[in-house]
Amino acid sequence: MWSGTGAPAELFFEDLTPGQSFDLGVVDIDETEMLAFARRFDPQWYHIDAAMAGQSHHGGLIASGFYTVSLFMRAYVDSLLSRAAADASPGLEELRWLAPVRADDRLAVRLDVVGSKPSTARPGLGTVTLIGTMIRLDADGQPEREVLRTRFRGWFVMRTGGDQARQAGA
Amino acid sequence: MWSGTGAPAELFFEDLTPGQSFDLGVVDIDETEMLAFARRFDPQWYHIDAAMAGQSHHGGLIASGFYTVSLFMRAYVDSLLSRAAADASPGLEELRWLAPVRADDRLAVRLDVVGSKPSTARPGLGTVTLIGTMIRLDADGQPEREVLRTRFRGWFVMRTGGDQARQAGA
Repeated sequence: MWSGTGAPAELFFEDLTPGQSFDLGVVDIDETEMLAFARRFDPQWYHIDAAMAGQSHHGGLIASGFYTVSLFMRAYVDSLLSRAAADASPGLEELRWLAPVRADDRLAVRLDVVGSKPSTARPGLGTVTLIGTMIRLDADGQPEREVLRTRFRGWFVMRTGGDQARQAGA
Repeated sequence: MWSGTGAPAELFFEDLTPGQSFDLGVVDIDETEMLAFARRFDPQWYHIDAAMAGQSHHGGLIASGFYTVSLFMRAYVDSLLSRAAADASPGLEELRWLAPVRADDRLAVRLDVVGSKPSTARPGLGTVTLIGTMIRLDADGQPEREVLRTRFRGWFVMRTGGDQARQAGA
């Protein structure tokens, strides 16, 4: 069974149980990429015009929320999906941008398992409910402020019933 | 009052009323950019490995859902926020990826206003609840399949009370 990145999977549906937490590492906000993303996908003045943003209540450029959540996704792939028998996701139940993210911020990324049940629609798969958070760290590396929180579901292949899922091409 | 792109705003809170629909244009999925986005932000095999994806139940590469929603955001900025007195968004109430998106798909983008009320926390601003959809078109340009739906809130400056918001730097 393939993991999210094509390597053999170690983590299956049964391995993800409510109460578990995963440290997904730390992400640094690169100003060049933050701006390039905003120019392409979210060219609003508080994301791309440093002069206007600096004079406004934003107090300077802030990252597009879609850039921040895309960085969450990358951390989730690197730390967990790369070793999990994961299928696609049906979507996000909620996504909250709780505080501005700025260039050179350092964000700690975390994942909590909050629910788990076999999929009724897709035999051999289970649905796991997860909460992902990104927390800005201060200069000493201590948690300062939660900036992003998302609650979402992911499909994972069952160890038991995996043959059925494999035959179905899942 | 500035619009989302820095031009004078034409659309204020009072102009966005439940029942209104906005055509946000059409987006074409470019394979090169779709792959580059996935390699950077969502490097799972069904987003980046054409051979593995082709042999799986996905039947070929599919776009990262975060790429698709980022394209929605760009269409929303171009067609509406560029002329609206908009502030940031607190987040998405829901985001559903309803069907795979693939290279060369053409998606029609639409926005529906479903709710509207003055913000209690932020004087001079109103909260508008919106539903964004992306619909794949067939070769004849006819709607074929809804691929993305998101329900979210946005803050907009009021015509009445705008002075107060301007003074607060909103």
